[in-house]
Amino acid sequence: MPMPENVQIGSGQLAVDRSFSIVVTGVHDASLDREVHRFKTQLSRQTGIPFWPKAAATPTLTIHADHGRDAVQKLGEDESYDLAISNSGAKLTAPTSLGILRGLQTFLQLVQMTPSGFAVPAVAIKDQPRFPWRGLLIDVSRHFIPLDVLKRNIDGMATVKMNVLHWHLSDDQGFRVESKAFPKLTGMGSDGTYYTQAEIRDFIAYAHDRGIRVVPEFDMPGHSDSWFLGYPELSSGAGPYTLEGGAAIDPIMDPTREETYKFLEKFIAEMARLFPDAYFHIGGDEVDGKQWDANPKIQAFKRAHGMKNNQDLQAFFNQRLQKIVARNHKIMVGWDEILHPDLPKSIVVQSWRGQASLAAAARQGYSGLLSHGYYLDLMWPAGRHYAVDPMSDAAADLNPDEKSRILGGEACMWAEWVSPENIDSHIWPRNAAIAERLWSPQSVTDVASMYVRLQAVSLNLEWLGLTHRSARTHMLQRMAGDADISALRVLADVVEPVKDYSRWDEAKQGPIDFHAPLNRMIDTVYPESDTARHFRDLVQADAQSGFKDKAAEEEIRSWLTLWRDNDARLHPLLEQSFLLQEVKPLSESLAEAGAAGLLALDYLGKGEPCPESLRTSQLALLERAKARQADLLLMVAPLVEQLIDASAGQVRPN
Amino acid sequence: MPMPENVQIGSGQLAVDRSFSIVVTGVHDASLDREVHRFKTQLSRQTGIPFWPKAAATPTLTIHADHGRDAVQKLGEDESYDLAISNSGAKLTAPTSLGILRGLQTFLQLVQMTPSGFAVPAVAIKDQPRFPWRGLLIDVSRHFIPLDVLKRNIDGMATVKMNVLHWHLSDDQGFRVESKAFPKLTGMGSDGTYYTQAEIRDFIAYAHDRGIRVVPEFDMPGHSDSWFLGYPELSSGAGPYTLEGGAAIDPIMDPTREETYKFLEKFIAEMARLFPDAYFHIGGDEVDGKQWDANPKIQAFKRAHGMKNNQDLQAFFNQRLQKIVARNHKIMVGWDEILHPDLPKSIVVQSWRGQASLAAAARQGYSGLLSHGYYLDLMWPAGRHYAVDPMSDAAADLNPDEKSRILGGEACMWAEWVSPENIDSHIWPRNAAIAERLWSPQSVTDVASMYVRLQAVSLNLEWLGLTHRSARTHMLQRMAGDADISALRVLADVVEPVKDYSRWDEAKQGPIDFHAPLNRMIDTVYPESDTARHFRDLVQADAQSGFKDKAAEEEIRSWLTLWRDNDARLHPLLEQSFLLQEVKPLSESLAEAGAAGLLALDYLGKGEPCPESLRTSQLALLERAKARQADLLLMVAPLVEQLIDASAGQVRPN
Repeated sequence: MPMPENVQIGSGQLAVDRSFSIVVTGVHDASLDREVHRFKTQLSRQTGIPFWPKAAATPTLTIHADHGRDAVQKLGEDESYDLAISNSGAKLTAPTSLGILRGLQTFLQLVQMTPSGFAVPAVAIKDQPRFPWRGLLIDVSRHFIPLDVLKRNIDGMATVKMNVLHWHLSDDQGFRVESKAFPKLTGMGSDGTYYTQAEIRDFIAYAHDRGIRVVPEFDMPGHSDSWFLGYPELSSGAGPYTLEGGAAIDPIMDPTREETYKFLEKFIAEMARLFPDAYFHIGGDEVDGKQWDANPKIQAFKRAHGMKNNQDLQAFFNQRLQKIVARNHKIMVGWDEILHPDLPKSIVVQSWRGQASLAAAARQGYSGLLSHGYYLDLMWPAGRHYAVDPMSDAAADLNPDEKSRILGGEACMWAEWVSPENIDSHIWPRNAAIAERLWSPQSVTDVASMYVRLQAVSLNLEWLGLTHRSARTHMLQRMAGDADISALRVLADVVEPVKDYSRWDEAKQGPIDFHAPLNRMIDTVYPESDTARHFRDLVQADAQSGFKDKAAEEEIRSWLTLWRDNDARLHPLLEQSFLLQEVKPLSESLAEAGAAGLLALDYLGKGEPCPESLRTSQLALLERAKARQADLLLMVAPLVEQLIDASAGQVRPN
Repeated sequence: MPMPENVQIGSGQLAVDRSFSIVVTGVHDASLDREVHRFKTQLSRQTGIPFWPKAAATPTLTIHADHGRDAVQKLGEDESYDLAISNSGAKLTAPTSLGILRGLQTFLQLVQMTPSGFAVPAVAIKDQPRFPWRGLLIDVSRHFIPLDVLKRNIDGMATVKMNVLHWHLSDDQGFRVESKAFPKLTGMGSDGTYYTQAEIRDFIAYAHDRGIRVVPEFDMPGHSDSWFLGYPELSSGAGPYTLEGGAAIDPIMDPTREETYKFLEKFIAEMARLFPDAYFHIGGDEVDGKQWDANPKIQAFKRAHGMKNNQDLQAFFNQRLQKIVARNHKIMVGWDEILHPDLPKSIVVQSWRGQASLAAAARQGYSGLLSHGYYLDLMWPAGRHYAVDPMSDAAADLNPDEKSRILGGEACMWAEWVSPENIDSHIWPRNAAIAERLWSPQSVTDVASMYVRLQAVSLNLEWLGLTHRSARTHMLQRMAGDADISALRVLADVVEPVKDYSRWDEAKQGPIDFHAPLNRMIDTVYPESDTARHFRDLVQADAQSGFKDKAAEEEIRSWLTLWRDNDARLHPLLEQSFLLQEVKPLSESLAEAGAAGLLALDYLGKGEPCPESLRTSQLALLERAKARQADLLLMVAPLVEQLIDASAGQVRPN
């Protein structure tokens, strides 16, 4: 995963055992050497076999690249490779060593446990990406994410052949990059957690080694509260500014003062040197303009320049900004809102709004990236992200020229509700589904196959040190104190966080407290419940058989029994923990859902319809189970509802 | 854990919440600042609460040390502390900041989940160690252990208040320290894995920050094969030497040549500068002397010097060595074999042979350390290590002066059968029981209490990044491929590796292959089965009630049922994996044991004795279950045997 462009299955397999050896022919540089070393380390972890350096008469794997890589990875650099595996050996060839990186990841995913040993199947693969820009945005402003966590996510991205880390480095809640020219950006604009320039250089080299570009984003003129603590003169209002946020008015930069551009000239020059990538992201999203409206000097400026609205003023700002970015030999990237006819066609528009916006940009001659549909913080299931295609909907009607302007897309991990502890589980494994969408041919759309492969890749990612599965154990244990967590795990396995932006309603609840502990059940559970998905498949299979699928029914019954009995096991623990008291009703609901499901199964088994009055009372009971509780959703409740309806001879539309 | 010397329980508790704050009065240095920072990080991990710097009117925790620490930690440096916690605040005081380190670990262990929030109970603790030397030996020669793994083990040691890492840095299988004077020691005497001097300095500083001394061991004149690859002139035989070992004769240094001492003079001077600790371990164990016997020049030397045997020759070598060590301002430490009347009383003898040997040394005026009984590689249960006391047996009869020469002890993690992947689970949590033996008063001996606290500390250790529990999941998954591992876990939970040195019989099986993969079931399971211990307690409770303890019986029945049915679930997986084929009979045995136990329970339930013929056939069936299979022991088999006997009205002696 992602599925290669072309796969021909052969017969037989190649053993991966202690005699495994590698020979590199063709191009041979330090970056490739490091990659081969990492490959062997990873293969060792997967198999438990230590591979000692040895001379081999016939190598197991021959690697050949025609050309090396550029010092700075380019958009569209050749990533293709051929991998041919027979039972006597494997050969990986590629035009560039970047393709070798991609091919080695494919090889690692092919390693299987067999009755006779570890092996890779005989296969011939020709592969190249569908889109040249396949990114993941990580927001490190709302919650600071340390470099070791980012590095393991880079490893994960390399596994699924993503090639851009979009690093959202500044926002209202913190400025995260050391500036030597403007030290107060971090000195006052952060809580002391940020990256030094030396750390950033090291991190960029780390990402480059893994075939990943690092595109920095400094969000302006909005989302820039953190800049103003140290440099209030940049802002359009009077301040004072704090990192806690919560001001009714979102602070914005003042685009009418020349000093603003002098500052940005110096700042962008410094950052352009620090970040070698050809692209430079200036944000540009969600400028509400209230500070502009409230400032008479800015109003006067708008009138003097014949600007009709704040969009014109932002376009004016962006034009100035674009010239600065261009003078530093960078291409400007920004969110939908930067799109304006006054801006040159060289810019790239990243769409959080959707394919229509992307298509409109492409028609006007702008390049674009899709992020709408790829927001990992919305807690969607992988399958829903997987169904979103950059070339679908409005983009489907573009002509080939226009289509070529759609460079790819980016998954987005906004960090309002993630910490270093649980960010992995919010990115993985779902991000792998988006990675496949952006790499594999458009025709690869089988969701069931995707989920099977997602499970396998998820296990592989744990070998890399990602904690998307293991961290939950610690977090559950924290809530449980010293107690046994098996019953708590049963509950955690069938719930998901509420979706979209419904966790927190700022209008009703006030500003988000970014220092609040993220140690509740909602922070602990996975965005997508594998158990609920599996149970859904079972119920579906049973329903399709007219509730005569005995194997499915038996498994459904054992799940329902587990759930019915779980609250009794779990209850004493919930009483003991202040963090778990909020999930008491949820645990009761699970027990009720289990009991209701079993009752339905009994009627289905007897072939006798459940009386309507009983159906009505059971469905009423399920209302609580279906409702949001402790900001969580009990994902199996609607499926039990289906069983109840079926037991009464009703079919509920899916 | 370890249990403090004196604990007075108060009433009430002190909340640990977002307002938690710390004030340091008295001595204040960089090392203490770092410790306080680590404390807060660890507290954050345990609670999930991010503690932001803030000014507090009344601090939650006040820390006061009278004196700072020495740049090099001394044996016997004051580690005592007082910790007073009330519901309004906590005060930690100590004569030195080393005591503060110890007290902060106690505080972390007191943090509990309660219905009203995280809290520490009101308590007054006065604490100091029983022994000044509480160590853990880690062998990094047989399998190289990288520094990140060692560092997390240092963190674990600090948690249980151990204060010496004994670093076994050279042995036949590899020399692990960079020597600038003799680069071929690692250049030819290792597989390329070793520590540079810069890394070692960094590691020693890391350990010092956590109150842990680092004592290096360079084993000589035996166990020194790895020296001879680069410097064959040091050896008593002709060679050639390889790291693979397997020579019938163990290579030994030549103690008769002056060049040997010139080499060691230069080498020890270099190492004495690198390792600041006052103690320097020269090994000295297991010198079989065959190379000496085979060398006519060495035989002539012995005769010329009137030496009766090889012990005399080794004592001669040790005397020379001791003078070199002393000239470098170090105190020599060695294993039992170095004890010889010709050596000065200043040396320290580490006993792998037992308290008798230790007592003999103490009577002769030598200081000593106990390691016999603390070998973690023997796969003993924690309770067995816990029962070993340095002052018991022969040492119990020593007079106070002699007793004062017993400085403490060391757990030993010999690395023939551990890799970086599973070394944590072979050290932890059992090492915590040994740490308690060496810190807490001799009267603290309640094994049941120890196990309860061991479970709690084991959870805490996972927060530090130790993988003694989490790594098993990955290793089981590796053996299972992509399959579900729940049934495999049931089996893994009730087996233990064979004990002592019975895994490998070199006489029969030839030399150990140190490059072999450690990815089998025996490498994956814990040295001690918690499930089996729990089941033993249940059977004991039921037996003591005359098999009328309904609660115990119900739980026994559910375990036996799980085991009886597990092989059917597990079998398809075992067929698919070459690594699991060897455990097929074991899985069958578990099913048989489950069925036999259930049959016994039925007879016990009916109050009707199981017929003798049935008992005999059931016991015969259990013979395979009790036997070693795949180098594993099915720990529940003897308990099922007890049930069978009881069902036939027989009582089997424990």
